[in-house]
Amino acid sequence: MRLTNYYIPILRENPSEATIVSHRLMLRCGMIRQVTAGIYGFLPLGVRVLNKIKNIIDKRLQEAGCLEVIMPTVQPASLWHKTGRYDAYGKETLRMKDRHENELLFAPTAEDVITEIVSTTLNSYRSFPKILYQTSWKFRDEIRPRFGLMRGREFLMKDAYSFDLTEAGAVQSYKLIYSTYLKIFEDMGLTAVPVRADNGVIGGDLSHEFHVIAQTGESELYLDKRILDAIKLNKDFDSLKDYYAATDEKRDEEKHNELGENLNVSRGIEVGHVFNFGTKYSESLNLQITLPDGSKALPNMGSYGIGVSRLAAAIIESSHDERGIIWPASVSPFDIMLINLKNSDSACRELAEKLYQSLATKFEILYDDSEDAVGSKLATADLIGISRQIIIGPKNIAEGKVELKDRKTGKSELINASRIEEFL
Amino acid sequence: MRLTNYYIPILRENPSEATIVSHRLMLRCGMIRQVTAGIYGFLPLGVRVLNKIKNIIDKRLQEAGCLEVIMPTVQPASLWHKTGRYDAYGKETLRMKDRHENELLFAPTAEDVITEIVSTTLNSYRSFPKILYQTSWKFRDEIRPRFGLMRGREFLMKDAYSFDLTEAGAVQSYKLIYSTYLKIFEDMGLTAVPVRADNGVIGGDLSHEFHVIAQTGESELYLDKRILDAIKLNKDFDSLKDYYAATDEKRDEEKHNELGENLNVSRGIEVGHVFNFGTKYSESLNLQITLPDGSKALPNMGSYGIGVSRLAAAIIESSHDERGIIWPASVSPFDIMLINLKNSDSACRELAEKLYQSLATKFEILYDDSEDAVGSKLATADLIGISRQIIIGPKNIAEGKVELKDRKTGKSELINASRIEEFL
Repeated sequence: MRLTNYYIPILRENPSEATIVSHRLMLRCGMIRQVTAGIYGFLPLGVRVLNKIKNIIDKRLQEAGCLEVIMPTVQPASLWHKTGRYDAYGKETLRMKDRHENELLFAPTAEDVITEIVSTTLNSYRSFPKILYQTSWKFRDEIRPRFGLMRGREFLMKDAYSFDLTEAGAVQSYKLIYSTYLKIFEDMGLTAVPVRADNGVIGGDLSHEFHVIAQTGESELYLDKRILDAIKLNKDFDSLKDYYAATDEKRDEEKHNELGENLNVSRGIEVGHVFNFGTKYSESLNLQITLPDGSKALPNMGSYGIGVSRLAAAIIESSHDERGIIWPASVSPFDIMLINLKNSDSACRELAEKLYQSLATKFEILYDDSEDAVGSKLATADLIGISRQIIIGPKNIAEGKVELKDRKTGKSELINASRIEEFL
Repeated sequence: MRLTNYYIPILRENPSEATIVSHRLMLRCGMIRQVTAGIYGFLPLGVRVLNKIKNIIDKRLQEAGCLEVIMPTVQPASLWHKTGRYDAYGKETLRMKDRHENELLFAPTAEDVITEIVSTTLNSYRSFPKILYQTSWKFRDEIRPRFGLMRGREFLMKDAYSFDLTEAGAVQSYKLIYSTYLKIFEDMGLTAVPVRADNGVIGGDLSHEFHVIAQTGESELYLDKRILDAIKLNKDFDSLKDYYAATDEKRDEEKHNELGENLNVSRGIEVGHVFNFGTKYSESLNLQITLPDGSKALPNMGSYGIGVSRLAAAIIESSHDERGIIWPASVSPFDIMLINLKNSDSACRELAEKLYQSLATKFEILYDDSEDAVGSKLATADLIGISRQIIIGPKNIAEGKVELKDRKTGKSELINASRIEEFL
């Protein structure tokens, strides 16, 4: 993609409305623009990052046997009355009436509707277990939307739902997603800590939140700090379950005394949440399955969310420097930023065009072919934070070399222009 | 994907609520389920078809230089008041208030919000022309939702918006999208006819609808029938513009007399609509660009829609037989359906497992590993309509052969099991 054809409206100054670094950098890089409080439009660079995150999630969930569905955004309130969620959610849910005065709502999650659809489509015990998931735009009418995508009103969420015929099966599904989540976050270059949490209005009594440790996090976390190393070694529930790690609602003062200097009090950004809530929804929506012996079972369920748009912000909170974003390669909006420092120099231009043509068959390249000044080009490249840069300038080209720079370490090597593909 | 792990709730009988074939077959194949009037959930097979359609559109639009964005689903009514669309759209638009009593709406299209965002992000003439697009769920509160996805209330739409500094440039963008649309529909195995249409509430005076000819279409079309051959040869505006082709609102009786036996009166399903509407939105939202000579220009705009979920239905309307759907290969939910007719036969099972493992590295395979009866398996495969079938049965296996069947022609060949990959 040529920068001159692309759409990255850079802000050179920090926007005053943004108080945290991810919000500031997403605005400055032209990834997002606010339309009204807590509601954003995504520009091309922002869309590419969301797509990268979604693809990582899709791949891992599908490996785990989850099936993709799409539940409607607008749902009938009648269904939410049956499960009691209409009243429980209160003003956070955006409600409306259609032209025939039917009550509808903009779904914040889909437990009700997916249970209803499963109850009309699956009736044999042979069809279970099942884990269904979707990635879609949700709405929560926050009283005070803030921090950009971190606490927006409209947000992209991946939500999954598991259906098992036994309680033990449901726990297996829970553990499967728990471990899949740890892999997903690692794939994005993040360490996310699973923390015991409250089930809240979803219901049930087993729940974990996944938190990225960051000073700007809104949640207070209490951790046995040894869990941070353990996560790096073992991404499964049973290896991690005995480490103390709790949100404020689940804090345990006694544990804190026991842990002594192993206690770590941190702040975290919640990027995932998993719930096991038994038969709450299968009961209220009458999802019954006939077992081989003729008896009926109510499937045990769980639900599992990942905040996709919030993750884009959380990755920036945990990976940036004073010059801008540092995208981990797996979620970098492009693989490589190719920068021609001097467009008016014909040798530079010819090499840049040639490299762009040949590399674009194998990599996603953003090619700065603009007439901007050298300093501005380098600042833009560091600001938008594509993980690798190839820099072409008159001085190096005289020796047949180009500069290959790693955005994270800032380290450069001079490479023979003809051998650049080998190095990538 | 093993059928026993998958989620295709087949209906053996025709559902009484479905009066057209696409609605009937999508319900029977377990692609969709209705949640409430005009609002559907998509099950895995339906999601795969939507994803295939979306990918074809993405590829062609990106080739044409269009950039993907995501505009919010929920938009402030204040913006719609500025462009006059709030009143013009009337009851078709789903309206709501947030907890602070701000008026919001569920966007049916995004002309207003995208013009507003462009006006705050692009101010140099060098940034134009631009074509931005998104694929997202829209809502139109139809009085009488019907025909399944054909006239649903919540639907998946690809909408694109062009911004040009001159009228001539805007016509070029219009022609570019017009020709890109013809390629997109051809990629999906469809012939879609561009037909002069009314601009309606979008505004402007140049507009075409793209129609798939089908008896179940809701629109009456008047065509110079020679356009049908011309589309096959030339997918550009200038080659096609002189053929008479009009919707009911644009019919011209004089032309009908001139055309004589070349007049074709058909019914069509509208799958795309393109509009050129000049400066209507740039004017009302004050999108002004400074030109090199210091003067100001209001960009000329166009908007361009494709009904993604409706296309899934339109493809079925134009490609099915009495046994079920016949997916064109490009939108088939899987590349190949692998059918083991006799699971209890160990030679069959071993070969089926072996082929599944090896083919799954190169193709998307749906593998019927169920215990169902032979007749039921073959009927299911024809009903869901994956474009190619590999059938493994005891009789052929004795000779080391498998059957390779084309869903469309119904023709089979017996192929040496060891050579199946060569044939695919």
